[in-house]
Amino acid sequence: MIAVLKSGVSELQKNSLIKWLEAQGVGIHLSEGQYQTIIGLIGDTSRIDIDLLNGLEIIDHVTRISDPFKCANRRFHPTDTVVEIGSGENAVKIGGGNFAIIAGPCSVESEAQIIGIAQDVKAAGATLLRGGAFKPRTSPYDFQGLRGEGLDLLRKAREATGLPIVTEIMSASHLDMFEDVDLIQVGARNMQNFELLKELGKLRKPILLKRGLSSTLKEWLMSAEYIMSEGNENIILCERGIRSYDPYTRNVLDLAAIPMVKELSHLPIIVDPSHATGKRSLVESMSMAATAAGADGLIIEVHNDPEHALCDGAQSLTPSQFSTVSAKVSEIRKLF
Amino acid sequence: MIAVLKSGVSELQKNSLIKWLEAQGVGIHLSEGQYQTIIGLIGDTSRIDIDLLNGLEIIDHVTRISDPFKCANRRFHPTDTVVEIGSGENAVKIGGGNFAIIAGPCSVESEAQIIGIAQDVKAAGATLLRGGAFKPRTSPYDFQGLRGEGLDLLRKAREATGLPIVTEIMSASHLDMFEDVDLIQVGARNMQNFELLKELGKLRKPILLKRGLSSTLKEWLMSAEYIMSEGNENIILCERGIRSYDPYTRNVLDLAAIPMVKELSHLPIIVDPSHATGKRSLVESMSMAATAAGADGLIIEVHNDPEHALCDGAQSLTPSQFSTVSAKVSEIRKLF
Amino acid sequence: MIAVLKSGVSELQKNSLIKWLEAQGVGIHLSEGQYQTIIGLIGDTSRIDIDLLNGLEIIDHVTRISDPFKCANRRFHPTDTVVEIGSGENAVKIGGGNFAIIAGPCSVESEAQIIGIAQDVKAAGATLLRGGAFKPRTSPYDFQGLRGEGLDLLRKAREATGLPIVTEIMSASHLDMFEDVDLIQVGARNMQNFELLKELGKLRKPILLKRGLSSTLKEWLMSAEYIMSEGNENIILCERGIRSYDPYTRNVLDLAAIPMVKELSHLPIIVDPSHATGKRSLVESMSMAATAAGADGLIIEVHNDPEHALCDGAQSLTPSQFSTVSAKVSEIRKLF
Amino acid sequence: MIAVLKSGVSELQKNSLIKWLEAQGVGIHLSEGQYQTIIGLIGDTSRIDIDLLNGLEIIDHVTRISDPFKCANRRFHPTDTVVEIGSGENAVKIGGGNFAIIAGPCSVESEAQIIGIAQDVKAAGATLLRGGAFKPRTSPYDFQGLRGEGLDLLRKAREATGLPIVTEIMSASHLDMFEDVDLIQVGARNMQNFELLKELGKLRKPILLKRGLSSTLKEWLMSAEYIMSEGNENIILCERGIRSYDPYTRNVLDLAAIPMVKELSHLPIIVDPSHATGKRSLVESMSMAATAAGADGLIIEVHNDPEHALCDGAQSLTPSQFSTVSAKVSEIRKLF
Repeated sequence: MIAVLKSGVSELQKNSLIKWLEAQGVGIHLSEGQYQTIIGLIGDTSRIDIDLLNGLEIIDHVTRISDPFKCANRRFHPTDTVVEIGSGENAVKIGGGNFAIIAGPCSVESEAQIIGIAQDVKAAGATLLRGGAFKPRTSPYDFQGLRGEGLDLLRKAREATGLPIVTEIMSASHLDMFEDVDLIQVGARNMQNFELLKELGKLRKPILLKRGLSSTLKEWLMSAEYIMSEGNENIILCERGIRSYDPYTRNVLDLAAIPMVKELSHLPIIVDPSHATGKRSLVESMSMAATAAGADGLIIEVHNDPEHALCDGAQSLTPSQFSTVSAKVSEIRKLF
Repeated sequence: MIAVLKSGVSELQKNSLIKWLEAQGVGIHLSEGQYQTIIGLIGDTSRIDIDLLNGLEIIDHVTRISDPFKCANRRFHPTDTVVEIGSGENAVKIGGGNFAIIAGPCSVESEAQIIGIAQDVKAAGATLLRGGAFKPRTSPYDFQGLRGEGLDLLRKAREATGLPIVTEIMSASHLDMFEDVDLIQVGARNMQNFELLKELGKLRKPILLKRGLSSTLKEWLMSAEYIMSEGNENIILCERGIRSYDPYTRNVLDLAAIPMVKELSHLPIIVDPSHATGKRSLVESMSMAATAAGADGLIIEVHNDPEHALCDGAQSLTPSQFSTVSAKVSEIRKLF
Repeated sequence: MIAVLKSGVSELQKNSLIKWLEAQGVGIHLSEGQYQTIIGLIGDTSRIDIDLLNGLEIIDHVTRISDPFKCANRRFHPTDTVVEIGSGENAVKIGGGNFAIIAGPCSVESEAQIIGIAQDVKAAGATLLRGGAFKPRTSPYDFQGLRGEGLDLLRKAREATGLPIVTEIMSASHLDMFEDVDLIQVGARNMQNFELLKELGKLRKPILLKRGLSSTLKEWLMSAEYIMSEGNENIILCERGIRSYDPYTRNVLDLAAIPMVKELSHLPIIVDPSHATGKRSLVESMSMAATAAGADGLIIEVHNDPEHALCDGAQSLTPSQFSTVSAKVSEIRKLF
Repeated sequence: MIAVLKSGVSELQKNSLIKWLEAQGVGIHLSEGQYQTIIGLIGDTSRIDIDLLNGLEIIDHVTRISDPFKCANRRFHPTDTVVEIGSGENAVKIGGGNFAIIAGPCSVESEAQIIGIAQDVKAAGATLLRGGAFKPRTSPYDFQGLRGEGLDLLRKAREATGLPIVTEIMSASHLDMFEDVDLIQVGARNMQNFELLKELGKLRKPILLKRGLSSTLKEWLMSAEYIMSEGNENIILCERGIRSYDPYTRNVLDLAAIPMVKELSHLPIIVDPSHATGKRSLVESMSMAATAAGADGLIIEVHNDPEHALCDGAQSLTPSQFSTVSAKVSEIRKLF
């Protein structure tokens, strides 16, 4: 961490700052230039509060040189994390060379629907089933999901197909209901719901942490850090597009986040091309691109009847379209 | 709402779509052009699921013509909403020509601190006291607030000064503790924590709803709609800056949101110049600008010792700086 | 195009607007709803000035339903455009299934440098040589390029290797010097330098039109339209990342723009992973991803000595790194 | 400037880098921490090419501590620049406490129109006349301005009213025609048209430099630096909104840029509320807010017949609306 002093700071002020910093347990290197004095903070600065330092009247500005995340940092944990989801013969690994496709409908609608889609996507190569029971919708007047009943139907689909299930949690008060969910998803809108993250950190269950609507990579990794610092290291990151100014697509899919996150962190990262683009016609090429970029998996919306899906039909593939995507993705994976 | 059909859609498909739409209770006007067929949906379309419609194979795209918010819509509620906070002689009104300044520290730190600041800001013209008890911090290693104890200290400061208190809630599970908070704040990171919004909708207490980190005006008003559709109409909106690509300021303060929101909605809107800019030196001019733009109030961070504030010191004013700002804002209010 | 009238507009005003619109040569369909009256404009609306219409006091707002670009529009020109660059045995085609890699240094520095790199990238699979002679730099104190001398050196490298040359023009007043450049590049900062675009439209030479720093797809295609409407249809689009708020990468590479542009337009589109990310370590995976997304080519920075490149060294590959990328990209192209 | 070395760099590499840096004329301070080695560059680093340094294999990353602009930097030029426009009794000063309003139509359309508006805005308090002769339009099919004829009409309006004239240049090749324009405007789309900026730097005429569509404050000041480093220090900056993701307004008006630019630079800064919002109904409140934020002036679109203006009618005020705005702005200026 680098703190640049304002010009005109007295020796007394400077020395009292240095003493205070040393008392926080960091080492100090001082560079006095023609135009400014720079204090380098050496050692573990991840617990220094940068806002506090910035608030001091004698400070011009402060720059972090090392990343503030520790548990999620590849520097301190060089090997890839492999997350195992589900158990027994249907258990699935993601990360460290293990690639998996999660597929299923935006919302769970009925027993026939979810079991039918589960069978279809399993046949086409998916190894995990997604389906929304609790749905975050911009409008209170839009369909909010079958909630508890949706979770029951997901369990039935798991029973029928063996596929581990992935579904979104929207409040820590629902945790009881999620006890036997195999992979709990935190949606983009809750990426900084810190009270929820802390509760999930107390579990030992895998968490799928979606990137926030316009979050930086650092904020995203700090949200992973919230979960990990409580003891749960089973985290899969999911890039799902960030806020865009272009009306043609719902978001900008930031595929460079894949190799960048892999440099910064050991956590696996998958991609959601369906929500990222909001357009069915773009899902195939973005699935291929994400795979070629080195993603550890994909999460794709599939619906047997996208015309009548209760939400997000515009971006859902039919099972047969999904089957084509899955085959093309396999071809690309062979190059890895 | 306007639905544009893809070219090559058959008469049969078109007619079955029209029948289905009419069954949802909307009227239909059909325009057949040289290059495309457009279906106009007439009547109350706010409960039509635009994503569902977009998902139909025969649809090119759908555009909403009328706004999807109803309770918050000025069209259906032309007069300004006035929100009353607190009770008795210290009650404060915001909206409909009533302007108020909320001031106080980022975090409640101690009894002496919060009572001291409360007295200072009251003397300088603030009529409500803010102070964070639960703090949303990007890093789990940063100070998280005094939580329950912080709420107790706020109550003491209210007792000492009469100022109604404003503080942020981070989880619906904390609602019991917020029973006698006068104005409950929903932070930017929870603007789309829909489960929390629904719970707040069941109260009759005023809610301060901050704009999300990169939310559109429509998303923001839809979040207000979540609260209002449950029955709680006591909402004050708060513009606090949106995500920027420029490192000089923390966010871009979007002051045009003030007159724009006032055209769209009858809800009062205030501005937080402290979080918007993250820089103490910009707070005075942005307070004046927000007032000149027609804001119904301001929420400003003030700390008796910003140098040692436990968070966000960089943007806090001293009581004496606040006093200057408050006086300049009063001058501008005289023009209204 | 859809024009929504304000409520309370008189019959007289409405009818006089309709007459005026019909006089512009468009057909009219009228839908009168409970809350608003909508006028649908039918026929060729691409020459209607949407701002003018929006300015009328009786209009609430106007929405374009069809795209304002014509020459660049796939609707009116369904087959892919193939652009041919250079002539004779070294001519290269891009688009319509033809894929090519452009490679070379950010700046031309010396005869030995540019000829050396040209030979290296040719050996590794590139079929066009790039090199900056005129350099757009944010700072006037940074290296501005060898200008005319740089163009001479590029010609020498073409003579030595046969590779057609690609280089950026920064002013229409330099056009004379660009007479025998094979592919003239318009940089992101000049994407809306309309006076330059019009001049390029009078040539019959291929133009590489980079996307603006934060341009929408529509603005980009309208800039292509500026060139095409003057008669030059030899345009290759180049996605190079758009403005981001995340400091880890220079820009966000918007790969979904590839399939989206291909739906909207018949023009070929290539990708610049070097400028998009600004980081050498991300170039390989983004080259692979762009290819998998369906790009018609790549433009990659290669320098024999990136450590001492006069600009943008941080993102340049060595010839040997480029050779690896080129081979991996070939593997992906085999799947197409 | 701070350069952070990668871990594992040898003593030899480190020392050879230090020698090379010292040869560029900067001093070196070395801080060796537990996790990384940091090299502080001391002295005038504004001419060090940060991209070149970033490109070195042994460098992790480089951060500028001091601003790269010199001529525009308040640190080296603490007093406000005052720009004088026009001459004689109608000369107008902007900056250093001098406030002025520029008003006029988006486009010059006819002699009667421009003289009429000039008289109206002069009567209402404007002291400079704007009017577009060369118009940058997104579409080649939209009205492109009267060009040379428009400049002639502006001159006639100046003759009739005495108001100095302000108009946009789109190409250095038009410079001859702009000889007697009083204030030459560089539009947002040309903010980084560096060849144009260099030519304007050779003049001694005032330049109005609009902020780019999504430019950072640093990029904007570096564009001013392009002009100033050639010798022309008569620059007025103009904030006109930056790219937004919200469809309700055309751009986000970044009013915090006013006090921020004033901290960084001595140049005057004015605001264009008309283009920033694109909505007539927001111009009054944004004019007042900009003035309250400390702007040195405003540039406002006024048209005698906005209903039939040839471009941007949606954002133009009538002379009578302008008169109201001008009066309210005067009231706010009295507080300064």
